[in-house]
Amino acid sequence: MMPALAVSRRTRSTPFTSRVEAMGVQAYTVYNHMLLPTVFQGIEEDYWHLCEHVQVWDVSCERQVEITGQDAQKLIQLMTPRDLSNARAGQCFYLPLCDEKGMLINDPIAIKHSDEHWWLSIADSDVKLWAMGIATGMGLDVAVCEPDVWPLAVQGPKAEDLMARVFGGQVRDIRFFNYRHLNYQGTDMVVARSGWSKQGGFEIYVSNAELGGLLWDELFSAGEDLQVAPGCPNLIERIESGLLSFGNDMDYSDTPLECGLDKYVSLTADIQSLSINALRSSTPRHQLVGLVCEGKHSFTATGVYMQELCVGEITSWAWSPKYGVTLAMARCSTPALNSDVSLTVNSDSGPHPVVLSGLPFDFNDLGLTAHEASQPQTVTGKL
Amino acid sequence: MMPALAVSRRTRSTPFTSRVEAMGVQAYTVYNHMLLPTVFQGIEEDYWHLCEHVQVWDVSCERQVEITGQDAQKLIQLMTPRDLSNARAGQCFYLPLCDEKGMLINDPIAIKHSDEHWWLSIADSDVKLWAMGIATGMGLDVAVCEPDVWPLAVQGPKAEDLMARVFGGQVRDIRFFNYRHLNYQGTDMVVARSGWSKQGGFEIYVSNAELGGLLWDELFSAGEDLQVAPGCPNLIERIESGLLSFGNDMDYSDTPLECGLDKYVSLTADIQSLSINALRSSTPRHQLVGLVCEGKHSFTATGVYMQELCVGEITSWAWSPKYGVTLAMARCSTPALNSDVSLTVNSDSGPHPVVLSGLPFDFNDLGLTAHEASQPQTVTGKL
Repeated sequence: MMPALAVSRRTRSTPFTSRVEAMGVQAYTVYNHMLLPTVFQGIEEDYWHLCEHVQVWDVSCERQVEITGQDAQKLIQLMTPRDLSNARAGQCFYLPLCDEKGMLINDPIAIKHSDEHWWLSIADSDVKLWAMGIATGMGLDVAVCEPDVWPLAVQGPKAEDLMARVFGGQVRDIRFFNYRHLNYQGTDMVVARSGWSKQGGFEIYVSNAELGGLLWDELFSAGEDLQVAPGCPNLIERIESGLLSFGNDMDYSDTPLECGLDKYVSLTADIQSLSINALRSSTPRHQLVGLVCEGKHSFTATGVYMQELCVGEITSWAWSPKYGVTLAMARCSTPALNSDVSLTVNSDSGPHPVVLSGLPFDFNDLGLTAHEASQPQTVTGKL
Repeated sequence: MMPALAVSRRTRSTPFTSRVEAMGVQAYTVYNHMLLPTVFQGIEEDYWHLCEHVQVWDVSCERQVEITGQDAQKLIQLMTPRDLSNARAGQCFYLPLCDEKGMLINDPIAIKHSDEHWWLSIADSDVKLWAMGIATGMGLDVAVCEPDVWPLAVQGPKAEDLMARVFGGQVRDIRFFNYRHLNYQGTDMVVARSGWSKQGGFEIYVSNAELGGLLWDELFSAGEDLQVAPGCPNLIERIESGLLSFGNDMDYSDTPLECGLDKYVSLTADIQSLSINALRSSTPRHQLVGLVCEGKHSFTATGVYMQELCVGEITSWAWSPKYGVTLAMARCSTPALNSDVSLTVNSDSGPHPVVLSGLPFDFNDLGLTAHEASQPQTVTGKL
C-alpha cells in the first residue's frame, strides 16, 4: 500500500503530466523537484511490456544543466574524473561528477554541443548549484542555467520503428550515445540514442512544451499497431540491467570506484579535474555488488550479514520474473567481499543465503536462463 | 484525489517515519530528498488543532548543512546579503541565500554555534552543493557536510507547556529565534524557539535517532491532557501567517527584494557578500503579494489577470476558515501592481475579483475578523 503524494507548485508538473494522468499513471516519485511517474499497469506488467514492445516515458525530471561560455569545457572537466579531451560535438557521455575528495555528486549524461556549450542531463541532485558554486568561486567565464527542456524517452525493442515513423528513417543512423538535430514540425529537436533501460531506444530533448504535447500524441497514434504504451523507468528492468540509481545505489558517501564505475574514471590521464588526485590515492572501503537470492522474497530489512555481523546494506531489489530469482544491489564492505564466508539477507520468510555477483549481473555466469513472458506477479522492492 | 507516492531509499525515511505512519499520516511530499508529512486528520482539521492545542512535527527534512572551519563565518556571509557581523552564538537567523545576480538559492534558518561552526537549516534545494562549490572554487578553509540531525518541531499555543514538562522550565526562558543546549536523558540537544507556523513553539535538533524516538514517545505521553497530536507544516496556517515556501512562492528566478524580504537584505552594510552589489542595483520586475477573494474557491488555473492581460501567477492558495475568504500568494508584475485597474483570478465558478494585500496579510486592515473554530470543510489549494 503506497502513501499519497501531496502535489504542489514545488513538486513541478511537466508539459506531459495531463496526458500521463489521462493514461492512468498509478504513482509518482519526486525527482529533481519534479514529478516522475513510477508505475502504470503494474511494475511487472510494465516490465514485460517494455521488454516486448515500445513505451513513451515522461522523463522531464532529467533536467538539463546548461553550461555555456569560454570556460564551459574547462568547468565540465573540473567536475568529472573522466577524460573529455577527445569529446566531440554530437556525442553523449556518462559522467560521474565528484567533489575534491572523489565523492559522487551526481551521474549525468553529458551532451556536448560544442566546447562552449554543454548540457548535463542530471540525476537527482542540484548540479546547477554545484556548477555555479565552482564557477563563482573560481571566476570562470561561464553561464549556468536550467533551460526549459523536458526529455521524452521512447524505449523498448520497437522504439526504432516507432521513431522512424515520426522522425523519418534517419533515426536508424544514430549510433548509441550519439545524438542528431532532427526536425519536428519545423522545429529542431535533439534526439539521442540513449535511455534508462537496456531495451534500446531514444531520448528526445523537447524544448517547446506545446510541440511536445503534439509529439506525445503523434507517438501514440503512429504506434498503435506496435502496442505503444505509456511507461517509466522500471524497477525490475533497471536492476536486471544493472543500471544504478543515484540516491538509491550510490550517493555522496561513495566514490565512483566503490560503485564499479572504474571505466569512467581516467586515473592515468593528464586532466584538470577536482577529484582525480583524491581518486588516484583512494582505497575502496566498500563496493556495490549484485546479490542473487533463490525464490521470490520481500526483504523486510536492508542488512547483509556474514554470520552475525552486518557487513552491508541492500540499496535496491526486485523479483526478476525473467530469471525466477530475487535480485538486489548492495553496498558491502570490501573485507567481507574478500572473505570466503557466505552472505545472508533477511526476507519475510527468514534469513536466506545469497550468491554474490558483479554488476551488471552476468546471468550466463550465474547459470540462469531467461524465461518467456509469464503471468505478472507483484512482489517488487521498495526499500 | 491525490496520486500515490512510490517510496524508495532515495526518498529517505526518517527516524520518526514508523511513528508517523502508526499515527495515521495521510500524505507526504518529498523535501530535500526526504519524506515530509503533509496531512494527518485533514488539512482543515489539522489547522484548527494547530491553532488550539499542540502538535509534534517530523521535520527531519529540514536538513542541516554544517559549515565548520576558520572561514566558516566568511563563507556564510558570502552566501547571504544579510549583515551577520553582529551575529552571536545562541542566535538563529532567517537568511535569504543568493547568487551573484541576487537570485534566491534557498532561505534557511542559520544557527550560529561559533564563528567557526554554523548550521544552515535548509529549505528544499541542495545548499550543501552550493556551499561546497564556492568553498572549493575559492579555496576556503572550511568543511561542509550534512550531519545526521533530524529536527522535531513542537508547535501550537500549548507548545511551551508541553516542552516544559519534558525539558524543564528553562525552555520558557528561550527567546524567539534563540536556542539553548538542553539535556535530554544525558544527551545534549539544541532547542530553539522557532518553527514554520505562527502559533508559537520550538524546534529540537535531534542528533541521536534512538533517543529521538524516545523523545517523540515522551512528548505524546506527557501531552495527553494537552491534546497533543501529530502534525506537519499546514497549508492554511502558513498562508494565513504569510510564511513563504521556497519552490512554491519563490525560487531561483526571484530576488529577495521581489519577495518582500527587504529587511533581510542589508543594502547599506559594508559586507563581503556575493549578491549585495547586484541587489543594490536591482529593480524588482515583479512582487510577491497577497490576494483575497471573497467566498470559498478552488482555483482551476494560476493566472492573475488585469482585464484580458495575464499579469501574474498564483503560487499558493487556501481557503481560510478563520476569515471566511480564499487567500492566495501571487507573483505579479510591478507595473500591474502600480496600476489602478483591478485584478481577477479564475476559480471553478468563473472569474473573480481579488483584493490586493501586502504579506503577511493584515486582516484588520482588510476589514476581516477571525471566526472561532467551526466545522471543518475541505477545499484547500494544491497548484
